[in-house]
Amino acid sequence: MKVKHLGDVKEEIVAKANSTKTTVRWLITKDDGAKGFATRRFEIQPGGQVGLHDHAEDHQIYVLQGKSQLIDEKGNKVELKKGDAIYIPPNEKHGFQNNGDEPFMFICVIPYLE
Amino acid sequence: MKVKHLGDVKEEIVAKANSTKTTVRWLITKDDGAKGFATRRFEIQPGGQVGLHDHAEDHQIYVLQGKSQLIDEKGNKVELKKGDAIYIPPNEKHGFQNNGDEPFMFICVIPYLE
Repeated sequence: MKVKHLGDVKEEIVAKANSTKTTVRWLITKDDGAKGFATRRFEIQPGGQVGLHDHAEDHQIYVLQGKSQLIDEKGNKVELKKGDAIYIPPNEKHGFQNNGDEPFMFICVIPYLE
Repeated sequence: MKVKHLGDVKEEIVAKANSTKTTVRWLITKDDGAKGFATRRFEIQPGGQVGLHDHAEDHQIYVLQGKSQLIDEKGNKVELKKGDAIYIPPNEKHGFQNNGDEPFMFICVIPYLE
């Protein structure tokens, strides 16, 4: 087994999907031996966003801290908070807007598609 | 997409693997449309444990709160804390012992094997 602390995992700036003030750490990946899926931890600073986008990979998300708006494919906004779990199916548009005053942090698990 | 709060998900007692003082909430599952894997949130109370066990499913784990000992297949104990990410390969023995004084909470993602 492999144990690491998030502070030891490289923090990368997210530029895709018109993202701003957003970083990601790929916590568990193929490099650790994981085959089916990967665990990432995102952080969006106040005023930051991940723009509306879609892709073939579905998402399983768990909110760790902070608040944010989740924007769906119709443009509807849902308020997210700590302890929320979100399932986003493949090819469904989604985005995040941190309209709060603290960092918004979440775990997002994504499959490795063949 | 589907959004739910952990408090709205049934909390179940974990009895497998000689577990004590341990509960699980299956946050995102096949019932939500997820095909490849499921997101669960475990809670082990002080003095509780998940006994040493193994299975074909690998685990991707993220520690949310508290401290615990992770026991590996050789009986070695690793101290876990908030922000730790753990990868446990298929068929590798593992267990948890909450030897702290607060609840130990973690996310554990597990594949649906065919």
